Amino acid sequence: MRHECYFCHIKTVESLIRKFKPDADTAEGFIFAVHELLAANRDMANPQLATQVHRIARQHLDNGNLYAAEKKEANDLLLGQYEDWKKRVRDTDDPFYTAAKLAVIGNIIDYGAHSVSRDISAQIQGFLQQDLTIDMRGELKEALGRAESVLYLGDNCGEVVFDKLLIETLGHPNITFAVRGKPVINDVTEEDAGYVGMDRVCRVLSNGADAPSTLMDFSSDEFKEAFYAADLVISKGQGNFEGLMECDHPNIFFLLIAKCAPIAELLGVEKNNMVIVRR
Amino acid sequence: MRHECYFCHIKTVESLIRKFKPDADTAEGFIFAVHELLAANRDMANPQLATQVHRIARQHLDNGNLYAAEKKEANDLLLGQYEDWKKRVRDTDDPFYTAAKLAVIGNIIDYGAHSVSRDISAQIQGFLQQDLTIDMRGELKEALGRAESVLYLGDNCGEVVFDKLLIETLGHPNITFAVRGKPVINDVTEEDAGYVGMDRVCRVLSNGADAPSTLMDFSSDEFKEAFYAADLVISKGQGNFEGLMECDHPNIFFLLIAKCAPIAELLGVEKNNMVIVRR
Repeated sequence: MRHECYFCHIKTVESLIRKFKPDADTAEGFIFAVHELLAANRDMANPQLATQVHRIARQHLDNGNLYAAEKKEANDLLLGQYEDWKKRVRDTDDPFYTAAKLAVIGNIIDYGAHSVSRDISAQIQGFLQQDLTIDMRGELKEALGRAESVLYLGDNCGEVVFDKLLIETLGHPNITFAVRGKPVINDVTEEDAGYVGMDRVCRVLSNGADAPSTLMDFSSDEFKEAFYAADLVISKGQGNFEGLMECDHPNIFFLLIAKCAPIAELLGVEKNNMVIVRR
Repeated sequence: MRHECYFCHIKTVESLIRKFKPDADTAEGFIFAVHELLAANRDMANPQLATQVHRIARQHLDNGNLYAAEKKEANDLLLGQYEDWKKRVRDTDDPFYTAAKLAVIGNIIDYGAHSVSRDISAQIQGFLQQDLTIDMRGELKEALGRAESVLYLGDNCGEVVFDKLLIETLGHPNITFAVRGKPVINDVTEEDAGYVGMDRVCRVLSNGADAPSTLMDFSSDEFKEAFYAADLVISKGQGNFEGLMECDHPNIFFLLIAKCAPIAELLGVEKNNMVIVRR
């Protein structure tokens, strides 16, 4: 764990206590369960710690889907704008680029320690004005042309609507969209993918895990098989990047916004920069 | 410790690491020294914990006066405005009230977990427009008339300039101004009191302790004697309130801004309300 990550885990606890207002004993139990986890696992990687922090949260707050309302709200907001964005993508000179950029921008919708802006629509417009800081979309397009099978790793609700738009725009015949196995933060699950109609544009596959990331050690055999069988993996978001940046898949592209200093530093960009980068 | 206070202690660590940018090992050592302190002392009162957190900070960051620059800046800013404020107090209908209110407002200058606004002057003007939520200044004035000796407990740098103005305005012949025994956060020490000329308007006395509060268990015998011998105690700021709210002095008034939810709740006011309240 980087020391910045320590503060992020504590902030997750604080924001959940603010949101759910448990009684003092429950709050204290929750706080010190995470406190002990962090003390006992100082060297554990961040996505594993985040997974366990959220398990503790669900248990102590007695709620299996802590961000259910935010998930629905983000999905509904972006679904409501879907036809407009689809038209915009269709009308640009380079629909692939516009759709890919929107898919990266969708990554701002994150209810983890990095709280979502009140006005998501305004934030999307702001990011649209900016260029990608690392822009390997040419390589990505080429890789897509060569790949017989593509595994697209989803990240958050709301964002998933832009993923659907990108997948429709790609028009590739063999894409699988992977989702979390259980609700964690506002990450997209099978249910959420169904809600936005992802199952009508490609195959949807659960990774069987409850990490806000893609962690092979926690994933189902079926997912692991699909991961290594895919010619190309498109990984959305910082959580998936943290879990997979050292993975051994030979052909993986990361599409994300660098939401914190340690990840920006790893990528050699600034915080809030957008990237499409090949590993 | 209230659970809200837990997050405040962690924020102190985070803001000091942001400020001093120690290397990763030092940062981790500092973080987990505080982490262990909190785990081992879940039931300790907040001001005692704050004292120990700041001891750990000074030790790990190898710096005995972590807020030296902020202290000087706040003192210089308010000293530069001193003659203007003095004139304003002199020209009002009720100089005692204006000076007392300014002394309460000075309490916004706090570099603990509650970070100081960039524009202190604008913030002072904002608070001047508001009334005190609990206003026992009538009782305070009466108590001052009867008291033969007054112990005035100082709080922060910058704020101390308004304390000096209030003490000058009171014109009481026997006031002692108490300061911290060692630097802690931006709290006023003997050196700071001398810097703003407090020693020219009244006696200055160190409490001998390094708490960002007034804690009898940590204070010198000389201070304890002065405390119990004083006919009237005027206690400035939230830190002193937290340390003394259950003390057994028969005649103590608290002048402060309630800077966090737990203290506001204890006082029956809202966060950021100003109070002059007798215990």
